[in-house]
Amino acid sequence: MQAAEIDEEFPVVDIDSPALEAARMLAEHSLPGIVVLTADGQLYAVLPASQVVRFIVPSYVQDDPQLAGVLAESTADRAAEKLGGKTVRELLPQHQLTLPAANADDTIIEVAAMMGRLRSPLIAVMKEGKLHGVITASRLLAMALKCGLTEQALSAVVTGLKTAIQPAPTRVGVAPSTA
Amino acid sequence: MQAAEIDEEFPVVDIDSPALEAARMLAEHSLPGIVVLTADGQLYAVLPASQVVRFIVPSYVQDDPQLAGVLAESTADRAAEKLGGKTVRELLPQHQLTLPAANADDTIIEVAAMMGRLRSPLIAVMKEGKLHGVITASRLLAMALKCGLTEQALSAVVTGLKTAIQPAPTRVGVAPSTA
Repeated sequence: MQAAEIDEEFPVVDIDSPALEAARMLAEHSLPGIVVLTADGQLYAVLPASQVVRFIVPSYVQDDPQLAGVLAESTADRAAEKLGGKTVRELLPQHQLTLPAANADDTIIEVAAMMGRLRSPLIAVMKEGKLHGVITASRLLAMALKCGLTEQALSAVVTGLKTAIQPAPTRVGVAPSTA
Repeated sequence: MQAAEIDEEFPVVDIDSPALEAARMLAEHSLPGIVVLTADGQLYAVLPASQVVRFIVPSYVQDDPQLAGVLAESTADRAAEKLGGKTVRELLPQHQLTLPAANADDTIIEVAAMMGRLRSPLIAVMKEGKLHGVITASRLLAMALKCGLTEQALSAVVTGLKTAIQPAPTRVGVAPSTA
C-alpha cells in the first residue's frame, strides 16, 4: 500500500488569502491543519492546527508566554482582531520548517514515521512535483488497522486480552503462513 | 471568557486499555488526539494524533527513520499488528512530555499560547485537580472568531481586502472607541 493509494483531497489555502479565511475553514470543518499553496499551485507549507492557533496570539506573547497571564480577559477575548486584514503569508512562522511531504510511492510506515518525527497531523503526498493528496493521522490509522488486522484476528486479540489466560502474543494478525 | 467556559467533553482512554482501542477511537472519530487517564481518573497524558500514529511504527524505525524506506511494502502493511495485545501504557513515549493542561480560569490567549508552544492540538482544562473538559484547536479558533469579530466587522475586513483601495488597517474589528 503506497501513499498515493490512501491519500485524500483536502482543502487548501492560497498563501495570499486572508488569514481569517484559513482560521474559519479550520474551525468550521475541524481540520487537523491547513495546506498552504503558492499562487502557481506549489506546496508552500503544511501547518498543524496548533500552529494556526498561534495566528491569534500576539507576537509579544509568543516571545514571552508569561505575558499571556497578565493580559486582561477583555483584551484576550478580542484576540481574533489580530487576524483582520492579515494574509496567511504574514502569519506563517519566520523560519521555514521541514515540509511534511511524502512521495507517492512511500509506504504507510514511512508516512507514519514522518508524521511522528515532524509532529504533523497531516502529510502532503507529492507526485511528479505536484500535490497529489493529503494523509491525515486518522486516515493513516484507519488504513493501518484495516489492512493490518482482519476482524477475526482483532476479535481474537480482544478475547485474548479479556481472558488473559496466556501471555499476549508478540505478533497478531493475518499470518501468511496460516492462510 | 475563561477556559472552563469553552471546554467540551472529550473521549478519554484508560492507560491500561488496549492500544488498538485508542487507535480505532481516534481513526473512527477523526479525533485530533487522545486523553489518557489513570485508573483513578487522574490526567496522565494528552497525545496528539501524530504521536498516536507512532504506535504503529516499529521502535527500530523510530530510532533510525532511514530504515522505514527499506522495509518491504508487505511488512509495512502489517504494521498495525504491532498494536495487538499492547496497552496504551506500553506505547506511551518513554520520557513524559509537558502536560498540555490549562487552569479553568485561564484566558483564551493563555490556552492558545500553550497550544502553540507545546504543539498540542488539544488542551486539557483542569478544575480543582480534576479534568473539567478539553479545548481543541478548532474549538478555540471558533470561539476566538465568534467573540472577537462581529459579522459586520468581518464583512468590512473582507470588503477592505477585496477592494484594496487603502493599506490594510493594523487593527480591525469592534473598536470600543467608535462604538
